[in-house]
Amino acid sequence: MRYLDKINSPRDLKRLQMPQLPVVAEEIREFLVNSVSKTGGHLASNLGVVELTLALHYCLNSPDDKILWDVGHQSYPHKILTGRRDEFDTLRQFGGLSGFTKSTESPHDVFDVGHSSTSLSAAHGLAISRDLLGQRNKVVAVIGDGSLTSGLALEGLNNIGRSDTDLTVILNDNQMSISENVGALSRYLNDLRSAPSYINVKGAVRGFLQNIPIVGKGTGSFLEKTKTHLKYLLIPGVLFQELGFKYYGPVDGHNLEQLVGVMQNVKEIKGPVLVHVRTKKGMGYVPAERQPAKFHGIGPFDAATGAVKPAAKATYTDVFANKIVELGQANDKIVAITASMPTGCGLASFKKNFPHRFFDVGIAEGHAVTFAAGLAKGGLRPVVAIYSTFLQRAYDQILHDVCIQKLPVVFMLDRAGVVPGDGETHQGIFDLSYLTHMPNLTVLAPANAAEFGAMLDFAMHHNGPVAIRYPKDTASSFISSNPSPIRLGESETLVNGEKIAIIAVGSMVDAANLVCERLCADGYAPTLINPRFIKPLDIGMVTDLAKYSHIFTIEENVHAGGFGQSLHAALRNKGITTPRLHPFAIDDDFPPIGTRDELLALVGLDADSIYTKIAESVSHDEAI
Amino acid sequence: MRYLDKINSPRDLKRLQMPQLPVVAEEIREFLVNSVSKTGGHLASNLGVVELTLALHYCLNSPDDKILWDVGHQSYPHKILTGRRDEFDTLRQFGGLSGFTKSTESPHDVFDVGHSSTSLSAAHGLAISRDLLGQRNKVVAVIGDGSLTSGLALEGLNNIGRSDTDLTVILNDNQMSISENVGALSRYLNDLRSAPSYINVKGAVRGFLQNIPIVGKGTGSFLEKTKTHLKYLLIPGVLFQELGFKYYGPVDGHNLEQLVGVMQNVKEIKGPVLVHVRTKKGMGYVPAERQPAKFHGIGPFDAATGAVKPAAKATYTDVFANKIVELGQANDKIVAITASMPTGCGLASFKKNFPHRFFDVGIAEGHAVTFAAGLAKGGLRPVVAIYSTFLQRAYDQILHDVCIQKLPVVFMLDRAGVVPGDGETHQGIFDLSYLTHMPNLTVLAPANAAEFGAMLDFAMHHNGPVAIRYPKDTASSFISSNPSPIRLGESETLVNGEKIAIIAVGSMVDAANLVCERLCADGYAPTLINPRFIKPLDIGMVTDLAKYSHIFTIEENVHAGGFGQSLHAALRNKGITTPRLHPFAIDDDFPPIGTRDELLALVGLDADSIYTKIAESVSHDEAI
Repeated sequence: MRYLDKINSPRDLKRLQMPQLPVVAEEIREFLVNSVSKTGGHLASNLGVVELTLALHYCLNSPDDKILWDVGHQSYPHKILTGRRDEFDTLRQFGGLSGFTKSTESPHDVFDVGHSSTSLSAAHGLAISRDLLGQRNKVVAVIGDGSLTSGLALEGLNNIGRSDTDLTVILNDNQMSISENVGALSRYLNDLRSAPSYINVKGAVRGFLQNIPIVGKGTGSFLEKTKTHLKYLLIPGVLFQELGFKYYGPVDGHNLEQLVGVMQNVKEIKGPVLVHVRTKKGMGYVPAERQPAKFHGIGPFDAATGAVKPAAKATYTDVFANKIVELGQANDKIVAITASMPTGCGLASFKKNFPHRFFDVGIAEGHAVTFAAGLAKGGLRPVVAIYSTFLQRAYDQILHDVCIQKLPVVFMLDRAGVVPGDGETHQGIFDLSYLTHMPNLTVLAPANAAEFGAMLDFAMHHNGPVAIRYPKDTASSFISSNPSPIRLGESETLVNGEKIAIIAVGSMVDAANLVCERLCADGYAPTLINPRFIKPLDIGMVTDLAKYSHIFTIEENVHAGGFGQSLHAALRNKGITTPRLHPFAIDDDFPPIGTRDELLALVGLDADSIYTKIAESVSHDEAI
Repeated sequence: MRYLDKINSPRDLKRLQMPQLPVVAEEIREFLVNSVSKTGGHLASNLGVVELTLALHYCLNSPDDKILWDVGHQSYPHKILTGRRDEFDTLRQFGGLSGFTKSTESPHDVFDVGHSSTSLSAAHGLAISRDLLGQRNKVVAVIGDGSLTSGLALEGLNNIGRSDTDLTVILNDNQMSISENVGALSRYLNDLRSAPSYINVKGAVRGFLQNIPIVGKGTGSFLEKTKTHLKYLLIPGVLFQELGFKYYGPVDGHNLEQLVGVMQNVKEIKGPVLVHVRTKKGMGYVPAERQPAKFHGIGPFDAATGAVKPAAKATYTDVFANKIVELGQANDKIVAITASMPTGCGLASFKKNFPHRFFDVGIAEGHAVTFAAGLAKGGLRPVVAIYSTFLQRAYDQILHDVCIQKLPVVFMLDRAGVVPGDGETHQGIFDLSYLTHMPNLTVLAPANAAEFGAMLDFAMHHNGPVAIRYPKDTASSFISSNPSPIRLGESETLVNGEKIAIIAVGSMVDAANLVCERLCADGYAPTLINPRFIKPLDIGMVTDLAKYSHIFTIEENVHAGGFGQSLHAALRNKGITTPRLHPFAIDDDFPPIGTRDELLALVGLDADSIYTKIAESVSHDEAI
């Protein structure tokens, strides 16, 4: 029997002796590779923190002590050790285990997360509340070097460094965010990692001991441990020290003895502490060690070889990836910016073709956008590719730095609409609401691959900011028989009918087309319109809608501030009040984990739900 | 005649000799104090950068060389020297000179700004576009130490430090953001300022010379200058050096010879350079030196004494300031957070009363919100007070860190609606749109002082996040004769009438009441409703609206995603389609500079415009 099978809480782990921990580590690795190869999920980052997680739970007392996992995608070993081992076959599935920390799942998950770089700020809040409420627990935030490139994390560092609260930051330095890491801080850490020890051992000892309370009779063995581990406690983290942290490191993140030794000591130190732990993403599983970016977030794969089934059809991301290279070849003023996701956002090929015109700014969405504003001001044509949910981080930069000046920046919002596998934190269902009210911004959504390409052509020639949003999905090949060119504020009528008008935004056109076919079979003759432009709306189309008795809008976005409400406002402005209006959109809530199909059905945006509702609505009115 | 009267462009300035510059500096100071005492505006920060501005324009070649002023509120000397001296009597007035840099005003204003901390990212974009387009101009960003506490600036620093582009950052270190400065970085700078020179002169010379191209016959005089200025070129900026910058400083920001010397040298250096300039906010005007926060942004004042007329009536900010202290006395779990604006946000008194429960996080809105989420998770009741326009910086943190977890954080959005004097960048007209679509968030707007207090009581007891938005204005004392208590999702009917329903949000209730009085005089009997809750809407009220023939909504927010669209959607959901609807809200644009009255008239939200439109609309329909 594995040790792992007897560990259902950190308490069980603490019963083990030090020499048994590496065995548990190996068991966890095997479990992770087997489990994730079946369900898909984040793998490389979890393989990297196996020993770190063991050391933290061995030395701390969760859930009284608070461990915050930044981003949370590296919390699988933590979940395995806190009673959720047997649920891993449901990982990232509808009703199943979240791929991130989630407080409703376990008291050991301190803070809900999904977006990166929140752990320092949240930990600071937990530490201060502990102090004010007179509690005594430890607060530890585990943050990757990639997450540390975000302004939010740097603000957190700056605020914690000045405070005198007891808080330990574990810098999990794997020299990667999702792709390779960037920025001066990253270079600094690299220097630190490889620095020939300009260690001042005497200073280190003194500094270390000064900060440790006298521990009575335990002192002897404590000093013994200290000596053992002294060689891992270096002085060079001057940058962190200047920011107010006591710096310890670098520590070998795969050496349990080192990790446990350091944690046992560090947890007694007062004030802000930063422990610099070097880990290897994908550690212990050769395919993941070799290709950590591929194994960052991955679908089911063959555990023996690491092979993944190739995707059957081209996704919107693929279409963008090819098109942007083509555009880049034709116009050397086009530059591309990503926030740590060159592959996820479809810019890997652009990067390869135009290395000097490609910029990965790290997990720094705000900088990405204001940097792009500067590039546009300087005469270039920047394309900023960031997932819908992460662009939320740059809301003010889009509004204040791009829209006020009407700068020609193109925003590519991948993963718009419901997002598979990630759950509440990653849904791209707010972008129409947070973008449409920004003056001067043009907002588009493509319904198929060909149109998507044409929209990019349009955007690159438009004299002002443009946002294009599209789902994490295969790009539909359904197009009208005679597609019209993309012109500012012009919709396309796909099917010309009467009485019923269905206006479906981007990703919803396919489903709407199915609905139309079924309505036709029922004897109706609905009109189907692809608005293309969420903003500005096609005023000709709006005026023309007066002739219908029923208007249905369909969008993968929440109701509030979405396309339906815009269209209805436009109808009202035109004095068109006769048609019955029904908006299909997402109710005011955060959809959970599921596949796209499951989630679309859940929120009532699958063809079946839409058809049923429309048929019911139309026949009900006819009955009256 | 003053030198100043002959300076209409940087070219004119360059004709002067070094000894004449201090005279010009004094002329600018006198001009600033006289001019701002009449118009109001930012004073202290401008007095602090007089010499720095002179040195930059003396050494650089604007507008070919790009000077970016972070925030832009310290650009008055820059405006004076670039041909806008004679427009200062229109400063911050309708149709007049902006208090920030604005590219439509002058080619010397490189980048539109108003929010802080954008200059590094924008400058990086301008430097990279210069490189890619094969141009050769200099790019210089001037940023205060306060602005540097923002994540956006830190992201910029991290990205610039890694690049090898030629870019000079001038760190204008006045040890203040708006109020006193905070954070570890600030402490670090303080140490730097006062560090007894652990200067390694030899190292400094070597470092300095290594980075300067050989300048042929100029070398002699160059070396001469170098020697003169060597004492100001220290080595200690290790933090910035670790981040990839060549550090020069600290430099006395009021010594023109030092400044010009350093700038002449530094502008030839390759790669990212940081020049650390020490300035004094308010320099040269005693009242402003003594009270720099008071003279940060100020109304008209007496130039001789610095005295300002006391405000006649209590503002919403004043009401909050008193109420939060009262709440804090009753409940010691209440903590307050501000992002660098304790006075502006009404937290000065709370800070004084409860220093350990008050947190100024610097210009770090993202951290403020996620920190608050951590505090709430830990069991406290955090109140985050940030202007409506600046809270845009924390959009994702509100959604992702607070709303998903339904944490009881209270957001106080001061300066909501149109904002006097600041123009496009500071309008608080988007908050209803960016907040209402966030699941789990309750959004309120008070119509008068008494109601505002009651809403705070409600918010502090509500089990979930609450946002309250209110204008920069005196708090109305108009209340209904018998105000009802604040209950979740309950509106208040102020006047009971028939046929016409007017639903006015918060700050618009006063104007709506005037409109009602005029409509009554015309023989109509309108109903007047104060919705109180923008979200959730009062469903009883919505149902009840079916009985009216005309419904008018009034809100100080853009149309898209605003209250009007929410209410109309709710009516439609209830099947209520009979009344004519007309929403009063702000059209899709950024309102310019003006007083609140001027701007409300401009956007059609003054009582006259509203009355005229309603009377016309109602009588037109009656005629039919």
